[in-house]
Amino acid sequence: MRLEEPRDLEAGNLRTRAVDAARGAKPFDLLLHGGCVADVITGQIRPADVGVVGPLIASVHPPGARHDSRATLNAAGKVIAPGLIDTHLHIESSMVTPRTYCEAVLARGVTTIVWDPHEFANVCGIEGVRWAVKQASDAPNRILTLAPSCVPSAPGLETTGADFDADTLRDVLAWPGIKGLAEVMDMRGVITREPRMMGIVREGLASGKPVFGHARGLSGPDLNAYVAAGVTSDHEITSAEDLGSKLEAGLFIELRGSHDHLLPACVEALASYPRVPQTLTLCTDDVFPDDLWRAGGLDDVLRRITRYGMPAIEALRAATLNAALRLGRHDLGAVAPGRRADLAVFSDLRDFRAEAVIFNGVEIGARDSRPDQSCDQLARGLGLRSFGSEDFLVRADSGRVRVATIDEPRFTRWGEAVASTAGGYVRPPEGSITMAVVNRHGAGTAPRMAFLRGWGAWRGAFCTTVSHDSHNLTVFGSNATDMAVAANAIRAARGGLAAVADGRVRALLPLPVAGLVSEQPLPDVAGAFAAVKEAMDQIATWKPPYRVFKACFGASLACNPGPHLTDLGITDAETGNVLTSPVLGAA
Amino acid sequence: MRLEEPRDLEAGNLRTRAVDAARGAKPFDLLLHGGCVADVITGQIRPADVGVVGPLIASVHPPGARHDSRATLNAAGKVIAPGLIDTHLHIESSMVTPRTYCEAVLARGVTTIVWDPHEFANVCGIEGVRWAVKQASDAPNRILTLAPSCVPSAPGLETTGADFDADTLRDVLAWPGIKGLAEVMDMRGVITREPRMMGIVREGLASGKPVFGHARGLSGPDLNAYVAAGVTSDHEITSAEDLGSKLEAGLFIELRGSHDHLLPACVEALASYPRVPQTLTLCTDDVFPDDLWRAGGLDDVLRRITRYGMPAIEALRAATLNAALRLGRHDLGAVAPGRRADLAVFSDLRDFRAEAVIFNGVEIGARDSRPDQSCDQLARGLGLRSFGSEDFLVRADSGRVRVATIDEPRFTRWGEAVASTAGGYVRPPEGSITMAVVNRHGAGTAPRMAFLRGWGAWRGAFCTTVSHDSHNLTVFGSNATDMAVAANAIRAARGGLAAVADGRVRALLPLPVAGLVSEQPLPDVAGAFAAVKEAMDQIATWKPPYRVFKACFGASLACNPGPHLTDLGITDAETGNVLTSPVLGAA
Repeated sequence: MRLEEPRDLEAGNLRTRAVDAARGAKPFDLLLHGGCVADVITGQIRPADVGVVGPLIASVHPPGARHDSRATLNAAGKVIAPGLIDTHLHIESSMVTPRTYCEAVLARGVTTIVWDPHEFANVCGIEGVRWAVKQASDAPNRILTLAPSCVPSAPGLETTGADFDADTLRDVLAWPGIKGLAEVMDMRGVITREPRMMGIVREGLASGKPVFGHARGLSGPDLNAYVAAGVTSDHEITSAEDLGSKLEAGLFIELRGSHDHLLPACVEALASYPRVPQTLTLCTDDVFPDDLWRAGGLDDVLRRITRYGMPAIEALRAATLNAALRLGRHDLGAVAPGRRADLAVFSDLRDFRAEAVIFNGVEIGARDSRPDQSCDQLARGLGLRSFGSEDFLVRADSGRVRVATIDEPRFTRWGEAVASTAGGYVRPPEGSITMAVVNRHGAGTAPRMAFLRGWGAWRGAFCTTVSHDSHNLTVFGSNATDMAVAANAIRAARGGLAAVADGRVRALLPLPVAGLVSEQPLPDVAGAFAAVKEAMDQIATWKPPYRVFKACFGASLACNPGPHLTDLGITDAETGNVLTSPVLGAA
Repeated sequence: MRLEEPRDLEAGNLRTRAVDAARGAKPFDLLLHGGCVADVITGQIRPADVGVVGPLIASVHPPGARHDSRATLNAAGKVIAPGLIDTHLHIESSMVTPRTYCEAVLARGVTTIVWDPHEFANVCGIEGVRWAVKQASDAPNRILTLAPSCVPSAPGLETTGADFDADTLRDVLAWPGIKGLAEVMDMRGVITREPRMMGIVREGLASGKPVFGHARGLSGPDLNAYVAAGVTSDHEITSAEDLGSKLEAGLFIELRGSHDHLLPACVEALASYPRVPQTLTLCTDDVFPDDLWRAGGLDDVLRRITRYGMPAIEALRAATLNAALRLGRHDLGAVAPGRRADLAVFSDLRDFRAEAVIFNGVEIGARDSRPDQSCDQLARGLGLRSFGSEDFLVRADSGRVRVATIDEPRFTRWGEAVASTAGGYVRPPEGSITMAVVNRHGAGTAPRMAFLRGWGAWRGAFCTTVSHDSHNLTVFGSNATDMAVAANAIRAARGGLAAVADGRVRALLPLPVAGLVSEQPLPDVAGAFAAVKEAMDQIATWKPPYRVFKACFGASLACNPGPHLTDLGITDAETGNVLTSPVLGAA
């Protein structure tokens, strides 16, 4: 367990050792020589050697000026950059444990991440957040953990594992391991001064720690109001114009890599300013395991944003110095004496391939690929009985019934259809698939059901316990038999993703840690995830950009506008209504 | 007394009022309309109106979009800028009280200043710092007070009013009103790990508050060492090259207006970077009262630096957003919702003439010009008996003596001369003037004496209790009679500056508050200071850049290299020796 940062730098005689080494009175612990330093302060790439003492950079000096060092690292032909800082993400999206995630991105040069453990909190409550803080203190790189602000994100419309009110958050925000209030998603609550959300934001502000935002689609008076409420950042950029208005509103921007299609226009817009604003930072937000394994984390964002035309040094500054200043961490973000020796030695500033990584003064060695055993506390199974196919049928008495439907993935709309019945059950209307959600915590309630239209033709089922934001067991399918097989497979796996066709499990990714992540090594999880995705390509017919595999994970996100199915029924965020059955009456 | 900032913004229902006003549900308290906003984030100057609620900016919106406001301010044709932030200064240099200083600069658009009450501390000790913090809490603008780190600045070489060791600073740094450790001047102490200075810096770092620097002349290994020790800023820029190496070292730069001759080259150097670094801030450091009255404070720096070629928006950003980020004050530094309504409405971005100033949401009215009565606590006179002319003669027995001399102002050197004696006293050597320093706190010791060469021909005397850094009573003169008249005049005035010729006081500026500042209004102090300066032009023959009136205030600065006269004698910072008399022996 480390001392709380940045105080750790004042421990023992570290400063004296660094000063002595800087003056040449003592050798360095580590000397990086022969490379160029990416100076994100002046914007120059200049030949310089870097002397490190303990976790500190002691000296940045002309090439070859010093040779006395306990260890050396040849950086010839390479660029020594500050370690990357990812200003907003959910580790859970990568379906691996915090340690596994951090090892993966650290090897790529990401030395600091800002983590909102929103999913663990929604499932496991305070215990989940406490566990997250513990994981952060044991992590191989720096995790700045935030207090999830929206547990649940749709109060009254779903059953989550916990309910964080202002009192809860006051406690959590006082923990030293908590570095701020995580993305405030309930924007309406903030700007209409709904007491619960107002109280939560007030606690965030009173803590003196930053309040991170989620200002999706806000503009004009509503944007002014949201920012005036005390929120200081946003990662929910939807267009170049939206980016501009958020910058002008004074928000720190966490420009995210997860919405790649927006990045080229954003880069172009940023180029139209006299300079890239220093309030621009970069983040990943959500990265699926196969993408993490194949492409990386924030390093991949840097690579893409540079490819789209942002000068590399500007992109690098956003990912380092700007982020450090936003976070109030003057010990981070630059290759300069007195700062922390978090360094990424990149092949160049185009591929950003990390040839070596120094974290807190220590060169990172080869990663091991063993399972992470640190998660027993949250690996306790789901509170669910086994399922029969009748669980995934909708009861109805009369011969023909009017049923409510949820039309179109992602931007959902209410619809209505007439359906026939057989044996006391509704036959799904033409062109629909069935969705079911059941409380994962063992409330004992039957699955709630909905008919989805606009999801194409399915030949099988998909079950997931990753289902935003309450992560109840969620099943989609063309028939009740496959749905039951999928649900039982996930129950047996204690959570995860399963693709089923013809009564047989075609692919399965067990996620036994809180039903959200796996303890297995990243390549294994990435492989299993890719296999599930591939199996689903056979079961469903996707049609980007909205009818995609990813949409399955957001179909229960009841805080968004339009109808969504949760464990309580079909919800409507605008009216607050909940339909416990899609059957509206006799046709 | 205000609530501690920035927490004050969370008091009562301020946020709700601001949010409601932003959405149009309630009127603003104040609406600035018709102007352009200087957007230091994006670098744009764009037409926009600004709605203010209490101390908060609630809305920045398109021109004319709103009209509902309790009060309005017509900004047509003008530029609405963030209030200016001066990142390093000593109010004492302006010889007026904190309130008077703040009123003067606030009217010019300077809403925040970072004050090192170094002079008050050296004279009045902890009581002086406590008083400074109290003055800050009552000030008309925002004073961020720092804990003076170098009291005394030359331990063992002078008698100051106090001695702040690490234990003292630990206490002071814990006060909520103290925002950091002020400029660490004892650079040698830092990099040679002298225990006293090391302990002081350690307390600064342990407090979690920033440690401000003074890295005069440091480069290469010594600069690396000084920065590695934990110091994070510097204002002692001596050249464009020095500026570059300090920026590369990762220091925040407080580029100061007090050394105007350096600014053009610095501006040129900054233009050679791809962009002006975001670690650049601006400060005044020291401004004499006549300059303050005539030209202003940080607004004048902005004016000059722009005239020397820095794009106005870049200069303005350095003086606002960059400073706010350096200070960790996310509520300051930009015209944006949710930030503090510290606004300067400038005529344009060339003259930077403040047509209106809003501080904490309140428009600043006309200043009154009454004396500031808040300083009784520190206006207690000097502990000095009256002087006779024999006090300013150097005793010697023999007929001819060898005497040590201090050669050249500012960059002093040791010299030696042969002098005759008369009546038991040394006759000042050819081409010298006499300098005397006496402990102002009533130690009862006789004045210590020195002969200065290279100061030209004098016809009279000058006495000052502003005499860095211990501010003991300091007298310069061509003859003992005038010196005694000057010293007695200052004793009667309880401190200040006096110019004397032919046995008569030609000009006097009383500075009865700690012998450093006056309670009178700025125009009066500026006028009296100018009169003293003018009188001194008749008494001395100046020869810039070093033989100037200003040099009188630094002739006792014993921490600098070379010989300096203090109340203990002629000191040598390098050897630590002190000569109690300039007489070396018989010739």
